[in-house]
Amino acid sequence: MGQLKLNDFSITAIDPKQSDYLESIFYHGNGYMGARGFACEDTSIRPHQKGIYMAGMFDFLKDGITDMVNTPDFLGLRVLFGNGDKENGSFTISDFSQSLDLHDGVFSREYLMQGGDQTLHVRISRFFSLHDVHVVGVRLEITPTNFSGLVSCIASIDTISCNLPVNDDQVKKNNQCVNYMDILFKTPLEKGCLAVLETKSTKIGLAEAFAIQCSSNISHTSTYYSDSDGRISRIDTFNVHKGETYCIDKLISVFTSRDIDKPLIKNYTIEKLNACCEKGYERLLEENRSEWKNRWETADIEISGDPKAQCGVRYNIFQLICNNSQDDDHVSIGARGLTHPRYKGCYFWDTEIFMLPFFIHTNPTAAKNLLKYRYNSLPSAREHSRRMNTSGARFPWMTSFDGSEQCESWDTGACEMHITCDVAYAFDHYIRVSGDLSFLYDYAAEVYIETARFWASRFTYDPDKDRYNLLFTKGPDEYCGVTHNNTYTIYLSIYNFQLALLTTEHMKKACPACLDELYRKIGFDSDEIEKWLDIIKKTEINYDDSKKLFIEDDTFMLLEPLKISDYKKDNTPLYHQICFDRLQRYRVLKQADVILLMTLFPSHFTDEQKNAAWEFYEPLTLHDSTLSFGTHALLGAQINKMDKAWDYLTKSLYLDLDNIMGNTGSEGLHVASLGATWQAVILGFAGVSFSNGVIDVNPRLPETWDHLKFTLLIQGKKVSFSINKDNWDMKILE
Amino acid sequence: MGQLKLNDFSITAIDPKQSDYLESIFYHGNGYMGARGFACEDTSIRPHQKGIYMAGMFDFLKDGITDMVNTPDFLGLRVLFGNGDKENGSFTISDFSQSLDLHDGVFSREYLMQGGDQTLHVRISRFFSLHDVHVVGVRLEITPTNFSGLVSCIASIDTISCNLPVNDDQVKKNNQCVNYMDILFKTPLEKGCLAVLETKSTKIGLAEAFAIQCSSNISHTSTYYSDSDGRISRIDTFNVHKGETYCIDKLISVFTSRDIDKPLIKNYTIEKLNACCEKGYERLLEENRSEWKNRWETADIEISGDPKAQCGVRYNIFQLICNNSQDDDHVSIGARGLTHPRYKGCYFWDTEIFMLPFFIHTNPTAAKNLLKYRYNSLPSAREHSRRMNTSGARFPWMTSFDGSEQCESWDTGACEMHITCDVAYAFDHYIRVSGDLSFLYDYAAEVYIETARFWASRFTYDPDKDRYNLLFTKGPDEYCGVTHNNTYTIYLSIYNFQLALLTTEHMKKACPACLDELYRKIGFDSDEIEKWLDIIKKTEINYDDSKKLFIEDDTFMLLEPLKISDYKKDNTPLYHQICFDRLQRYRVLKQADVILLMTLFPSHFTDEQKNAAWEFYEPLTLHDSTLSFGTHALLGAQINKMDKAWDYLTKSLYLDLDNIMGNTGSEGLHVASLGATWQAVILGFAGVSFSNGVIDVNPRLPETWDHLKFTLLIQGKKVSFSINKDNWDMKILE
Repeated sequence: MGQLKLNDFSITAIDPKQSDYLESIFYHGNGYMGARGFACEDTSIRPHQKGIYMAGMFDFLKDGITDMVNTPDFLGLRVLFGNGDKENGSFTISDFSQSLDLHDGVFSREYLMQGGDQTLHVRISRFFSLHDVHVVGVRLEITPTNFSGLVSCIASIDTISCNLPVNDDQVKKNNQCVNYMDILFKTPLEKGCLAVLETKSTKIGLAEAFAIQCSSNISHTSTYYSDSDGRISRIDTFNVHKGETYCIDKLISVFTSRDIDKPLIKNYTIEKLNACCEKGYERLLEENRSEWKNRWETADIEISGDPKAQCGVRYNIFQLICNNSQDDDHVSIGARGLTHPRYKGCYFWDTEIFMLPFFIHTNPTAAKNLLKYRYNSLPSAREHSRRMNTSGARFPWMTSFDGSEQCESWDTGACEMHITCDVAYAFDHYIRVSGDLSFLYDYAAEVYIETARFWASRFTYDPDKDRYNLLFTKGPDEYCGVTHNNTYTIYLSIYNFQLALLTTEHMKKACPACLDELYRKIGFDSDEIEKWLDIIKKTEINYDDSKKLFIEDDTFMLLEPLKISDYKKDNTPLYHQICFDRLQRYRVLKQADVILLMTLFPSHFTDEQKNAAWEFYEPLTLHDSTLSFGTHALLGAQINKMDKAWDYLTKSLYLDLDNIMGNTGSEGLHVASLGATWQAVILGFAGVSFSNGVIDVNPRLPETWDHLKFTLLIQGKKVSFSINKDNWDMKILE
Repeated sequence: MGQLKLNDFSITAIDPKQSDYLESIFYHGNGYMGARGFACEDTSIRPHQKGIYMAGMFDFLKDGITDMVNTPDFLGLRVLFGNGDKENGSFTISDFSQSLDLHDGVFSREYLMQGGDQTLHVRISRFFSLHDVHVVGVRLEITPTNFSGLVSCIASIDTISCNLPVNDDQVKKNNQCVNYMDILFKTPLEKGCLAVLETKSTKIGLAEAFAIQCSSNISHTSTYYSDSDGRISRIDTFNVHKGETYCIDKLISVFTSRDIDKPLIKNYTIEKLNACCEKGYERLLEENRSEWKNRWETADIEISGDPKAQCGVRYNIFQLICNNSQDDDHVSIGARGLTHPRYKGCYFWDTEIFMLPFFIHTNPTAAKNLLKYRYNSLPSAREHSRRMNTSGARFPWMTSFDGSEQCESWDTGACEMHITCDVAYAFDHYIRVSGDLSFLYDYAAEVYIETARFWASRFTYDPDKDRYNLLFTKGPDEYCGVTHNNTYTIYLSIYNFQLALLTTEHMKKACPACLDELYRKIGFDSDEIEKWLDIIKKTEINYDDSKKLFIEDDTFMLLEPLKISDYKKDNTPLYHQICFDRLQRYRVLKQADVILLMTLFPSHFTDEQKNAAWEFYEPLTLHDSTLSFGTHALLGAQINKMDKAWDYLTKSLYLDLDNIMGNTGSEGLHVASLGATWQAVILGFAGVSFSNGVIDVNPRLPETWDHLKFTLLIQGKKVSFSINKDNWDMKILE
């Protein structure tokens, strides 16, 4: 499986300037919660740098606008020379190494501590259990290499957590730290400490407790508790002997009032902690490993011939899993997952279009819960549509726990309405692959009809030309300005109408009672369908038949050409040097738009059309969004532009590991790109397609790849694929 | 001249719910500073409600964004029964009346104070001197009607001032009070008090001092000073006799470090206060009256036959004067003047297009200084253009003291670029009327060329059609969305090119050395002119020749018709019930757009074109901006739609007095509408025009108006107009 080590991917030493970057790529978690790769033994880092995020844990930054809360650090565990009464002078660190084991999510740091003439070998590891998401284990292993004497170990919960807001509008800077949590109480326990807190305005309760267990060879001299600077700690002092290795384990349990009633979180946390203590670190780790093993069995992609790509692909998969709270149907995955509060932790179309295919094919429970998050937020989507003076349900551009609009900038929030048809597309994508008709009846049907109602109220009829226009929209290409008749959005919204039509037709036969009940529930009158049919009939797609070219929108061909090479020297987005008002007048794309459309409906477009789109748009695309590389790798592979496809794949694959955009440290992992990479490998290079019940494979392996092996869940079956350069094999496993 | 009294304009009593509204309409000041009509004797009102604003007094609300500072209240003066040691129990107020004298700007409140069985008649008046803008006078007149005994008088400076931010985006609410001022020191003086303060981040120093003078019939029993709750006060106790009237005068002087070097402001303030004490209240008031008399001599409009309109017109003129700091060339006039911090006190195109004509024709010094504000902010306009990746100078949409962009919302800030050609138009307007060629050479020429350079870089060439487009713009009609080829903006930007061209041609002959120097200064190469000529030649105006109709922009005819009467029931703007995303898809206008264009260039359009525009746009216009009524009154009168013109005039004329928009209280006076009203009366109903050196008059008086009399400054001459229904007379006075 491989470990991610410091010396992979050009990281040769802990450079302080790289610490943000390293913390991002060493993120690890179980999707319920997770931590950036910060040092739990380092007391010099400030609270906002100790990033521990939990799915759905939001608080209001201001009226109506939430932020993803950085929660109190329960990981703190460190060793000092001497009796721990005071911090015994200075020490230096050497022979440092750090690793993240992709098998089981164990993050480890190892080094020598030198204090005076005493040297201590330290290894500190931690994991967020994938088996029981409320459990975290931290293990400190120490070996005095040249002395015997006292050492002390301090284990704490640091209740002072805070967020460093990152503004979204890329215009104004804000450096104010925000503390979102009130401490309700904290107390020492028999073997550790407990803290109970609450978010200031959303009033989400959070209980964190830990207990200390030591290896049997240890001899305690003293134990005491302290509570200062917001840090509640247990301090143990030991007598240690030269050459021997000692283990100090910190077992942690966490509950929030999102899981259970608030008055119960304290007791649940303590009970869970007691259960952890009974099991001990080793068994907890074993349970975690076994769950990871299960997960990898379905999710893994084996690549022979290219160890770097192998590690990269697994890293992508690993992080998709670490950022998904698979059993929670009230959260989605933020643009940066739980790895960083960039975009205030909000959910975008990134989940539905870029990440979801991975879950659809490897973890249907997770996929369904991601979709149910949208279903559960239908009331907010209806309210948002009502506020925008349209009908039905319109999914907001950025959302958090309650599904309300979190985007504060007009040109994206009000105009990038394609997210609504993206959501409908995603429901259909899941159902097409899984064949899960009960999900169609119980959830998707309502989403299709309510979103179709929205679209019906958003198109504008032009009686002069007897056609409908979609005015004032912005497509996926965010450099296109606010314009009319964006092809991507029109195509998907028409598809959205068709999903609603086909589903009602289907249910009319298969379950007329369900349909009647649904119509009653949402007050739907089938007369509304006339308008849908009229829009489908009278909406034109911008298409140049002579060139077989789909045109991005009504304005695109009026824009001024730009010699991109004069400006774009590396992967830094051009909006850092050219403002949006200027960019929107250049005929350039921030990211795939028509090309993305073609990857969503691979069988709807001819090769000629795909080639025409590639030849026209690819040279104009700046890839200033991380959503772009993977999509280009995918379509590139599908139409046999293998050199380009490979270039794009390497950017997508190593996007964060190689810090391609230069912002992995300051913004966290680009989770959508992890998912886009998965799609490029499976649907592009492996060439798997699934259409009308038929699985087809058309492999186009990169030169260095000898062999590719993976499994996919299709129609409820686990299908194993084994792909060589010239042939392939497929086996239905169960 | 008339007084504005409480019982004019449906105000019958001081209703607490109306207090904001009354404070707005009773605003009074000298343009250097001014106060809302709050009660200086009322200690119950909170600091942010005691609005005293000073031109150019801005502080940073956050990085790069300023707010107009509410300055410490120096007006406080009140009377109490008894010795003033403590506030002597409760008292009641009756027989209250309040007035604002438009002759001289004196704001007075009069009432009976009842405490136990003692009754005191109180009259309190104040004025901001128009003669010496650093001087304020407050006079308290008291008459014990049924007792003899002790009364006390408390005079203070309340150094705790704060602002209540009003957000601009009409989406989010913010209720946080912000204090922008640090107190440097405060001290009692021989006869009063002094406070010296400083804005927190812009570090503008402010000194305020007062002295107390009493009428000779007064007999002092004690005087002492107190400093508590941020209020530094002088308390005088007097022995008063039944039936006698006593005067207590508070003389005030104010300087800021915007006027003189910061270390000097304290001494200047004290010296000015001493000079005031020598003169006394009566003489200071006389000086103020005499200056107001001068001002009214040029500015007044006499209307016979309609006393309400007479009062309304004078109120409009009065407030234009009270909000203009005529000698300061580093400030303009905010959208709400100094009457309210709405829009953070910022300056918009409102000044150039709506207010300036009044100043051009009645106070050229003020007009020149308003234009010099723009000239002085050319460095910021260049910087703004550079940030927007265009050339030359682009004037930002909202500005404050330094001319940098203060607008934070994309669709207005980045898209309403017409302000740049509005500024060029305004320079030309002043020069056309005044004939001031040195202003053309010294200031306007540079503005014309730099703004033309901006426009040259903002148009986009379409080689397919060999034409230029102005993409992604928003015209004056803010409901039109971000669209292409807005007719108003294109027409004025082409005019802007022509101003630059004609000026360079003119200077080449009249003063080639000046032109060379200017070219050198701004690094201008006359080759750039080729591009201007090309754009002028190859830019099309949206015009339907068959209907003689100018079309607002490229999108307007695609929009959906709206039955306005279903939604618009009164003057409340529709954006309170329909969001901008929906409004932009309706074929409705927020405010005049093509119609405004026609009022700016009355001789450029035929009557047929004006009528076509009126018939088409007037029924579609919602007048959800206060910039709209006056413009419609103006064009309506010019094309003889007298009934409509009169309706619009009454709305414009009484906009604030009758609280037509319902927000005069919460937002202050709509200063642009004051100026638009003036234009409607003079250029519309009186029908004065001035074109190519010829003054023409084409009166269309409203039915109730018998006679109209006013003077205008034209080509350096004072011209008096006397207009009856059927004839008119014009006299050149000097």
